[in-house]
Amino acid sequence: MDSMQTATGPRAGEAGGERGRAVPPRPTNPMVTPLLTDLYQFTMTYAYWKAGKHQDRAVFDLYFRKNPFGGEYTVFGGLEECIRFIANFKFEVDDISFLRSVMPTCEDGFFEYLKAIDCKDVEVYAIPEGSVVFPKIPLMRIEGPVAVVQLLETPFINLVNYASLVTTNAARHRLVSGKSKTLLEFGLRRAQGPDGGISASRCCYMGGFDATSNVAAGRLFGIPLRGTHSHAFVSSYMGPDEITDKALRRRDGSSTCQDFVSLVQTWLSKIQWANSFVGTFGETNQSELAAFTSYALAFPNSFLALVDTYDVMKSGVPNFCAVALALSDLGYKAIGIRLDSGDLAYLSTEARKFFCAIEEEFGVLDFGKMSITASNDLNEETIDALNKQGHEIDAFGIGTYLVTCYAQAALGCVFKLVEINNQPRIKLSEDVTKVSIPCKKRCYRLYGRESYPLVDIMTGDNELPPKVGERILCRHPFSESKRAYVVPQHVEELLKCYWLGNSDKTRAELPSLKKSRERCLQQLEQMRPDHMRRLNPTPYKVSVSAKLYDYIHFLWLNEAPVGELQ
Amino acid sequence: MDSMQTATGPRAGEAGGERGRAVPPRPTNPMVTPLLTDLYQFTMTYAYWKAGKHQDRAVFDLYFRKNPFGGEYTVFGGLEECIRFIANFKFEVDDISFLRSVMPTCEDGFFEYLKAIDCKDVEVYAIPEGSVVFPKIPLMRIEGPVAVVQLLETPFINLVNYASLVTTNAARHRLVSGKSKTLLEFGLRRAQGPDGGISASRCCYMGGFDATSNVAAGRLFGIPLRGTHSHAFVSSYMGPDEITDKALRRRDGSSTCQDFVSLVQTWLSKIQWANSFVGTFGETNQSELAAFTSYALAFPNSFLALVDTYDVMKSGVPNFCAVALALSDLGYKAIGIRLDSGDLAYLSTEARKFFCAIEEEFGVLDFGKMSITASNDLNEETIDALNKQGHEIDAFGIGTYLVTCYAQAALGCVFKLVEINNQPRIKLSEDVTKVSIPCKKRCYRLYGRESYPLVDIMTGDNELPPKVGERILCRHPFSESKRAYVVPQHVEELLKCYWLGNSDKTRAELPSLKKSRERCLQQLEQMRPDHMRRLNPTPYKVSVSAKLYDYIHFLWLNEAPVGELQ
Repeated sequence: MDSMQTATGPRAGEAGGERGRAVPPRPTNPMVTPLLTDLYQFTMTYAYWKAGKHQDRAVFDLYFRKNPFGGEYTVFGGLEECIRFIANFKFEVDDISFLRSVMPTCEDGFFEYLKAIDCKDVEVYAIPEGSVVFPKIPLMRIEGPVAVVQLLETPFINLVNYASLVTTNAARHRLVSGKSKTLLEFGLRRAQGPDGGISASRCCYMGGFDATSNVAAGRLFGIPLRGTHSHAFVSSYMGPDEITDKALRRRDGSSTCQDFVSLVQTWLSKIQWANSFVGTFGETNQSELAAFTSYALAFPNSFLALVDTYDVMKSGVPNFCAVALALSDLGYKAIGIRLDSGDLAYLSTEARKFFCAIEEEFGVLDFGKMSITASNDLNEETIDALNKQGHEIDAFGIGTYLVTCYAQAALGCVFKLVEINNQPRIKLSEDVTKVSIPCKKRCYRLYGRESYPLVDIMTGDNELPPKVGERILCRHPFSESKRAYVVPQHVEELLKCYWLGNSDKTRAELPSLKKSRERCLQQLEQMRPDHMRRLNPTPYKVSVSAKLYDYIHFLWLNEAPVGELQ
Repeated sequence: MDSMQTATGPRAGEAGGERGRAVPPRPTNPMVTPLLTDLYQFTMTYAYWKAGKHQDRAVFDLYFRKNPFGGEYTVFGGLEECIRFIANFKFEVDDISFLRSVMPTCEDGFFEYLKAIDCKDVEVYAIPEGSVVFPKIPLMRIEGPVAVVQLLETPFINLVNYASLVTTNAARHRLVSGKSKTLLEFGLRRAQGPDGGISASRCCYMGGFDATSNVAAGRLFGIPLRGTHSHAFVSSYMGPDEITDKALRRRDGSSTCQDFVSLVQTWLSKIQWANSFVGTFGETNQSELAAFTSYALAFPNSFLALVDTYDVMKSGVPNFCAVALALSDLGYKAIGIRLDSGDLAYLSTEARKFFCAIEEEFGVLDFGKMSITASNDLNEETIDALNKQGHEIDAFGIGTYLVTCYAQAALGCVFKLVEINNQPRIKLSEDVTKVSIPCKKRCYRLYGRESYPLVDIMTGDNELPPKVGERILCRHPFSESKRAYVVPQHVEELLKCYWLGNSDKTRAELPSLKKSRERCLQQLEQMRPDHMRRLNPTPYKVSVSAKLYDYIHFLWLNEAPVGELQ
């Protein structure tokens, strides 16, 4: 599947400024309901309720601990779906009945309470979707009654984990491919379930892809669509005799060629006997030729052929050229070919030579610039290898490795309680990387002289924000000796308010998918290149203020049990 | 999250015998519609229609080429969703308008044709869901008008790929854990999207898991649900003073303990000063003790505590025992603990010793048998390592590695045209493993003397089936020298008819999820152990009949272009 039409259908999936302050629409996937959570969220909610603690005001941070794919950056995705989820959070009568059957020992009053729950007392602060983000810094800070926010944990992590992972994967594929290449997402068939396919298409577009093959995603999100034909189409034809309607009108409408099939055959034999090609190929596959001809009759304006069903250089490319030249006679311009197997560097180079020779031999302008798409099990490594070998590929169609995030299939976002009733809370662990950073926090990105981001810093909610030109001590949250002074040239506060219960006074608008895509590409460009390189990238620094550092370690000592030496 | 209630809610998701011959319900995920496909399926459909070929009767095979996870078997999943999909296949008016906008050059007649399409002329033959299956053997054979069946390719592969992959992964986890362990699927938060979570829960149950944490999946599929509480619950408490309602009625209802909190405190100090424990731990964490006490007050019948928020042996386990002993005083029996970090082999052994010492010290019957659940980033390898080290774990809670199929995130199912208008078709490739096996075929499993399956064999549709006691030549499809005679003791035809258009005369019923789970466990047991082992398993043989072998190679020669040596 390859180059084709651009969708301009309804953008049912986009919450944008144009709708003003209306309630965000429901989640894209109707299966995202308040029941899409772990049972323990309900058992905990019951225990909170039973203890009269359910209204305690809690602050949770959603963050990840390690960048994926051996890299030193991540792109944040999934925020819009989280906001849609809480904006429409409400239990149905059936949900409650089901929960009753699952938790038969719970008191009636609890189910009455559940029935009444919504997210009007919840606040969500988040980094904008499509931003480059780093470990430990909260992607989202969620505040509200502990029992309600607890119920959001699983769906929020589910919605953010995969979205961020696959957006990051797409961004990495964009970086290795370079700006000039067209990137097509072809992952639906190999995605982890229908929704894996649909959200992957959205996220890959945000991460820098140009189009998708997924029609449903094209419709939901307004992503450009691409696709032509498969091997099955080629092998479904026996030969040109099958084509009954052989007429094709010239592009300018001036006349009609009554036998396009013969025109193609004529061109094929012209190529075969031309000086440049004599002896390079014998009889081409007739079923393939018929399929190409038939496809060109259906789509004369956008003819792109898959050329590897039988043999690329002995059959596919010559057959394609014959059809493309016949189209050219009638004023149409073919788009190009797709390669789906074999040595893509070699085959693309050979195909390019063939096209250039055609241009020269028959004087068809720009025939040598015919587009070449490649699509066989591509990933970051193979694209990097192709770049090193040299190739003539213009567009990469990427599926399995992109959408399943084959190199690393999960991102480990967590959702940790950092404060309750204004009391900071910490979660300890033998493994220091798993210790949570307590307190309701603010997060800033500090930029240096060359407009590169230098460091992200977390402070307590009540500390003064870092100021431009001021010397700021940035400390590693857990390592005493790691610290540095920074004088920022620019300070950006990272967390914006995206949900403020029923009120919408100061809430930020969810940007359109296009805007998030622009943000992503712009932020990737802005990073210092050594953080972004594929091999041995430099870690980007994440820090805490001196005050927050002291508080973390005070709390740590306070909560850790003291052993007794025997 | 851990041991808890069993769901017996509505089984909205199960198509079963009890509904007789009704139309199967819609796909579980409402996003699975005819638009959930690649654009090229529509462009091809248009080209077929334009060429007047759309009614050509085609036969497609859906199969995979290689077993996942370095193993030599796969478990087939996803069939029910495919049947639900085609049973309800119909374009909505809006779908057609969107397609018009995407394919603006296509003739009106085509959209009229699309509007009228359904699957009444389609037949689907498939291996039953939950069966152990092997490469190259069609999991499904789909017959019908080429233009219609072409549209089914992407959704069918999407629905089968991940379902089969994750069912296989679950089966592998069951095999390495052994029959006696309880396996809990905790993957929702890390799954690749909401649907990845829901279908994973269904498939893991089919592959041999006992329960899930996913409430939505429990409701949709009737899977038992489990879960208790998280670290956040523990750290949300400051200390026992927070608990206001301290009363707990005895289990037999005979009286009420007015201060359960004090009873717990008394037990804690009894443990602390008992001979077996003097000096083994100091002051335990009071926020944890409060959380456990509160949870026990909410769920006295099913108390299970997560014991690693602060320190397992110095705080979590002693606190748990104090609460469990207090419950025991009132006639309740605690369930056990969950470990979510650290050295699980060591900690489970230490915890078991602690429980046994409590049983001895205080004479509480069966306290030593307290259930121990472990849940920190478990997978096949870590469970295997735990088994080798020795441990005291009764239940494994498995998430990330299970549902994202981290060890191999995709299965490569393909959908290949094997016959059109009774003409067999082949797809060639430089890579012999990618050559398709042509012809409409029948598939059989041949069993040997010891009731092990010996070999799967494909024959032409019109060949006589293999007979018990008869000597049958089984040939490798592509390797001339690999062949063997087999005298089967039992012959099983693998493909059953699951969809016969609108007619339902001979169609097999979709079994319930429970039945598919039983089939899976029974088939895994029936395989020869060397095919199933984790390291260096023996490949199971997949073959073709002598007649089909000859036909494949005749067609191959016929379609491959002949080069010209210069």
